Amino acid sequence: MQLLSETLRQITGPDVTARQAAHERLEQLTMPHWALGRLMDLAEDLAGITGGIRPAVERRAIVVMAGDHGVAEAGVSQYPREVTVQMVANFVRGGAGINALARAGRARVVVVDMGIASPLPADVASAVISERIGPGTANIASGPAMSREDAIRSIEAGIRVARRLAPDTDLLGVGEMGIGNTTPSSAIVATLSGCGVEEVTGRGSGIDEARWRLKVATIAKALEVNRPNPNDGLDILARVGGFEIGGIAGLILGFAALRKPVLLDGFITTAAALIAQSLAPESTGCMIAAHSSVEPGHRAALNKLNKRALLDLGLRLGEGTGAALAMNLVEASARLLTEVATFSEANVSQA
Amino acid sequence: MQLLSETLRQITGPDVTARQAAHERLEQLTMPHWALGRLMDLAEDLAGITGGIRPAVERRAIVVMAGDHGVAEAGVSQYPREVTVQMVANFVRGGAGINALARAGRARVVVVDMGIASPLPADVASAVISERIGPGTANIASGPAMSREDAIRSIEAGIRVARRLAPDTDLLGVGEMGIGNTTPSSAIVATLSGCGVEEVTGRGSGIDEARWRLKVATIAKALEVNRPNPNDGLDILARVGGFEIGGIAGLILGFAALRKPVLLDGFITTAAALIAQSLAPESTGCMIAAHSSVEPGHRAALNKLNKRALLDLGLRLGEGTGAALAMNLVEASARLLTEVATFSEANVSQA
Repeated sequence: MQLLSETLRQITGPDVTARQAAHERLEQLTMPHWALGRLMDLAEDLAGITGGIRPAVERRAIVVMAGDHGVAEAGVSQYPREVTVQMVANFVRGGAGINALARAGRARVVVVDMGIASPLPADVASAVISERIGPGTANIASGPAMSREDAIRSIEAGIRVARRLAPDTDLLGVGEMGIGNTTPSSAIVATLSGCGVEEVTGRGSGIDEARWRLKVATIAKALEVNRPNPNDGLDILARVGGFEIGGIAGLILGFAALRKPVLLDGFITTAAALIAQSLAPESTGCMIAAHSSVEPGHRAALNKLNKRALLDLGLRLGEGTGAALAMNLVEASARLLTEVATFSEANVSQA
Repeated sequence: MQLLSETLRQITGPDVTARQAAHERLEQLTMPHWALGRLMDLAEDLAGITGGIRPAVERRAIVVMAGDHGVAEAGVSQYPREVTVQMVANFVRGGAGINALARAGRARVVVVDMGIASPLPADVASAVISERIGPGTANIASGPAMSREDAIRSIEAGIRVARRLAPDTDLLGVGEMGIGNTTPSSAIVATLSGCGVEEVTGRGSGIDEARWRLKVATIAKALEVNRPNPNDGLDILARVGGFEIGGIAGLILGFAALRKPVLLDGFITTAAALIAQSLAPESTGCMIAAHSSVEPGHRAALNKLNKRALLDLGLRLGEGTGAALAMNLVEASARLLTEVATFSEANVSQA
């Protein structure tokens, strides 16, 4: 608990002086006023996050946190639970969607085992950071996912990973893998957004209508059985969350405390961001919403975070793929501040 | 005319065999079916354009074509005409928006003088490809922009630039600079989309309501005086176009003939793409719409091309900036085809 408390105390809002300085420079660049729109808004945000008008974004990492979910036994996903470990092996061997998109985004991929049910093959285990809380959560349809102590441990594990990566990382993207993990994410988003379960429950990896109804019923039951306290992020994480969701909340809080930007990915990482927001409202200042997912609850979650996504490309994969795709946009925004001349610097006539 | 005719004859539709092969591989990648949405659609398009399932996109260029417009004397822009040459100097010296975004997109910037009114400083002229048709077009509010011969010459100049760059360029982005050039673009889009002038006329670099009314009246007058033939792209270009617009149409046609992808930028380049479409309907196959501009006519133009933009970030700068921003998305799409494992290759269980 000490690491978490200390981290929460370090989180403050954006640097308004740096934001203002960035705004003034952006207004003087050799282009019609604010002609690069949301890219200029993002440049201003980066200045506020990092506290300077030359934000560093060169060294990049995508952290994929993996964990299993007891609720998968309720049949909420069309994939068998062993896919979690198979995909982790795929990440380590470089053949997954996130590996290709991280290369395009000039980011390294770091995989963390937060609590995968099956044992990892030796060559995979040696390439993964182990922060295992347990062999998957308990089934939230019949009781809490984990103890409050384990909820704290999962977040502190994420903070430790953040501290370990931060010296070599200017820009972090968060991702996840865990068969069944849209189910706890919907439970979290329903609790914190106040939206109905049906409204925030989607097709996950592509389930049919019958399985979707089962999923909605399972989430409703999980909320009824557990009654998470909407004013206590730790209680929500413990009752209806997941180990990788806690880990991602910790990553975000760790980077927020260090004043570095974090790109959120899809629905699950945004549920984790809501847990972070619940524990430290100012932590939203460091978050950048990479994309708008096909999952219907993603919109509700982004609204609660007061974020608008940069991309809308019909993605629904997770793994950090949307975050990886948006890294280049963040780079482009930072370059506006550091590389574009002002009217007076370039001797261009103003309107 | 021979270069243009020869180029038009070389343009054919997408390679359906390569598209199909790409589609089949994308369906087998280790992710839920089509979970990367529009990025997968784009990967399929790239296979169809290039005729193979390992599309090359590594060597990139943004070509910025610059020209002046006689109609600027009607007061349709808030910037003085000398800004065209000042901004060209800024491009060459590396301080403009396009320079920063091209660096982020790993593309080189090539500037072409298609007909700038003022003389270029010597250090600038030596860094620019000269394909000058004349010192700016004539004022379209009182007669044709240029002769039909000059319309052909401007397109053939673009084809020559395309042929010169193609041996070192896998992926082209098109951009432009020319004070007043949203005015001829609106005239072109109105002619080819059938939309009303008010509907396709925007604020350009940021003009006020009074100047916007003047701009609408000027475009309406240009269409009335010139009566461009909506079934003849060369006639439209000659009567209400611009030298850089013809040059961009030529670039697109040249790359289409060589089966290489072209990223369109904003409103002006999309007006040029409509000229290319009018001359060779199959040329749209090589075009990728990078972003959706703030200019209202851009939507009408994209509809006519049957294209949906990848990005929507409130951009209205031009110069090729939106095309530069989308280059990384094209790279990411290509990497899906070449770097992601299938279920059987990675031993991952299917749903």
